[in-house]
Amino acid sequence: MSEEEAADEEYDAVATADDDVESVVNAVSDRIEPDAAERARLRDVATRLATRAENTARERCPDADVLQVGSTARDTWISGDRDIDIFVRFPPTVDREDLERYGLEVGHETLPEGHEEYAEHPYVKGTVDGFDIDVVPCFRLESATEIRSAVDRTPFHTQYLEQRLDDDLAADVRLTKQFLKGIGAYGSDLRTRGFSGYLTELLVCEYGGFQPLLEAAADWQPPVELDPEEHARATFDDPLVVIDPTDPERNVAAVCSAENVARFQHYARRFLDAPQVDLFDPDEPTPLTDVELRNHIERRGTTPVAIRFDAPDLVDDQLYPQLEKSLDGITTGLDDRGFDVFRATAVADETAAVLVELAVSERPAIERHDGPPVHVRNHADGFYEAYADEPEAYGPFIEDGRYVTERPREFTTARAFLESDRLFDVGLGAHVETALEDEYTVLLGEEITTLLEEFAEPLSLYFDPRP
Amino acid sequence: MSEEEAADEEYDAVATADDDVESVVNAVSDRIEPDAAERARLRDVATRLATRAENTARERCPDADVLQVGSTARDTWISGDRDIDIFVRFPPTVDREDLERYGLEVGHETLPEGHEEYAEHPYVKGTVDGFDIDVVPCFRLESATEIRSAVDRTPFHTQYLEQRLDDDLAADVRLTKQFLKGIGAYGSDLRTRGFSGYLTELLVCEYGGFQPLLEAAADWQPPVELDPEEHARATFDDPLVVIDPTDPERNVAAVCSAENVARFQHYARRFLDAPQVDLFDPDEPTPLTDVELRNHIERRGTTPVAIRFDAPDLVDDQLYPQLEKSLDGITTGLDDRGFDVFRATAVADETAAVLVELAVSERPAIERHDGPPVHVRNHADGFYEAYADEPEAYGPFIEDGRYVTERPREFTTARAFLESDRLFDVGLGAHVETALEDEYTVLLGEEITTLLEEFAEPLSLYFDPRP
Repeated sequence: MSEEEAADEEYDAVATADDDVESVVNAVSDRIEPDAAERARLRDVATRLATRAENTARERCPDADVLQVGSTARDTWISGDRDIDIFVRFPPTVDREDLERYGLEVGHETLPEGHEEYAEHPYVKGTVDGFDIDVVPCFRLESATEIRSAVDRTPFHTQYLEQRLDDDLAADVRLTKQFLKGIGAYGSDLRTRGFSGYLTELLVCEYGGFQPLLEAAADWQPPVELDPEEHARATFDDPLVVIDPTDPERNVAAVCSAENVARFQHYARRFLDAPQVDLFDPDEPTPLTDVELRNHIERRGTTPVAIRFDAPDLVDDQLYPQLEKSLDGITTGLDDRGFDVFRATAVADETAAVLVELAVSERPAIERHDGPPVHVRNHADGFYEAYADEPEAYGPFIEDGRYVTERPREFTTARAFLESDRLFDVGLGAHVETALEDEYTVLLGEEITTLLEEFAEPLSLYFDPRP
Repeated sequence: MSEEEAADEEYDAVATADDDVESVVNAVSDRIEPDAAERARLRDVATRLATRAENTARERCPDADVLQVGSTARDTWISGDRDIDIFVRFPPTVDREDLERYGLEVGHETLPEGHEEYAEHPYVKGTVDGFDIDVVPCFRLESATEIRSAVDRTPFHTQYLEQRLDDDLAADVRLTKQFLKGIGAYGSDLRTRGFSGYLTELLVCEYGGFQPLLEAAADWQPPVELDPEEHARATFDDPLVVIDPTDPERNVAAVCSAENVARFQHYARRFLDAPQVDLFDPDEPTPLTDVELRNHIERRGTTPVAIRFDAPDLVDDQLYPQLEKSLDGITTGLDDRGFDVFRATAVADETAAVLVELAVSERPAIERHDGPPVHVRNHADGFYEAYADEPEAYGPFIEDGRYVTERPREFTTARAFLESDRLFDVGLGAHVETALEDEYTVLLGEEITTLLEEFAEPLSLYFDPRP
């Protein structure tokens, strides 16, 4: 048995037992804390690249310097993390255009195999010795309130936290991050809408550790408002508000959804009630099988319907908001036409699909159409005359003082609506709309089993929903 | 050709033409005004019976007198009306018990073939020479505000109107009554909830005639408030408020529904736009045939469902409010369970039926069950624990910060609900509830064609709804 296998076996033994907080925390900490060798490997690479970047930058601007930022700089990284962020700081006297040009030049010289990516401005990303390196240019400012783009803020975060995170707190940050990963609430990307690394670090500092944070979160009454520096200069309509210690106008938790705040509360309580190592392990869904999917459809008695199309070629932070918007638009369009939506989701890989489970997928041939109150004479007369001789309509008759007619309904099946041009009247993400204009398929009932080719894991989560 | 046939033919010719108001009014007036012979016949019977009643009453109470009331007393009756109301007034010093006893004795002596009926107190009703006679005892009071029961008020109404109705206004009252009959809005019984005779007379007096009333009604902005004596001492939440000139705390139009107010407005406009004699003729519905009913079901695409039971043995003024209440309860019960009600009605004859047209008659096997917000810890923990290990339920999962589960639905078909005991949890009229406890049948889809045995006319109106 190798050392690794032995560790796994010990870990599995822990995972199945009910334990006290301390032993669970110790077991998890042992696993996630980088060992000396791993730290040394990372430090070697980081130092080598930072030096190379600084030298290259100073050739262009003698006043430039380099700062390592992020969790690897703050020792809050988890064993196995491979992200090294190198920020190249230029004085604010440098033009933005020059900064971008210098930044790319420094990036390419530091990472000869790297490629350009684009956030608020372009930067170079590359891989060295198995680590993922970002070389990002920014301005060196006096205060975070002077920032010109979001990356300028990062050095201030690192400075702030370096002053506050001792080894114990850093260990608790690692633990909290792993817990958030385990429950699926880690990451401020727009697909997850969870807790960012910086937010996690601030929360651990604020509450004084992993366990005090969980104890507080278990009793949170959102909106929860924290302001470590007591300098807030704005109010926020978010369930969790943590005022950035380096910027009184910014909520660090702005992206964190109500769902993820509630999820954190839920698992904090479960952990404190019954500490379990497996809460720190993300559930990897078992791919849903064809038979299981058919059983769910039968057992639920709903009518699933999906729109499938080629996924727009976008980064996740652009794609998922568009999918969410399209999901909202399509479900609203269905609901508005009487096709009651039961639950819905959007999934994406090579293709993308909006999957809607309907409680009602067919409607009568006619719909009720309420007219104006009879006493509003102009409108009432117009309505009456419009429908009095309409052979397809029943009425007009009077109910509760209003004219009412019953007229043919535009769509009697959800499929007819989804296959019609009216689908494009609902709010769709711009790139989703373009993709649909190109081509899409409507799948109804057991036809959705074809989605399993690509989406067996997300469908497994959909049909076995957990907190 | 007899004189009557000739008159009919002339009338038919008028009915099909577009006419000016005057010629239509003249044609209708000719038809509805009692001629000299009819008046004489009524006067003879009324005088004879009033004298007989007064003599009999004075034998018991020398201070009693007799008053003819109602439309036949005020000359606002329509040719063919056969109601004579004779009110026997006793001084208020008489005990209520004595008054009731005297009243019945006088009634039986006046109408030897009569039988007793019961309103607020008992009275005798009978038929003499083809006229329907009511002999009703009441108190003779100084003012209508002193009344002890509703019938005490009637003499004051007659006195008030006798002072105001000249021959022209009386003719316009007849016309207005016939118009209201033609459009189905005449009668303050609790089935019709329309305009009473007294209300019609007050409106004609207030506006100064048939045509001015219609012109005003066409522009009414409910709530419409009239107070002929400017003495209102109460406010009312009704679409039409006419303060009783003899009682400042009473709305004469209290029973008149918003639907009938709107109906009157609708037809007032139609008449003023295009005067037509046929507006004065009630539409007699053509009985709906089996084929027509099946065609409607197919054309509408709704799912009709009916509950049929033996009609409770009640007078209409008790039966119809109970049917309405039951209709409300049953439609609410269906809607609450997701069986969307499209339109509904209640009908009664020997049997009674609540007929509900459903837009949705089937639901999935599961229903969404929203739990408490996760942050409400006590409730949230209780909810989570109740469902976490429930094998029949999906979830709990979190949406918008709340726990949600999907659990088996109690009823997946409207029929299952209607055939279950839960039907008795909805608000039903007391006598309807008793009748249903005894026995009822649920009819679904084309099974409702069996209702045609008894309800071919009301179903015809239901499936050809008009203002």
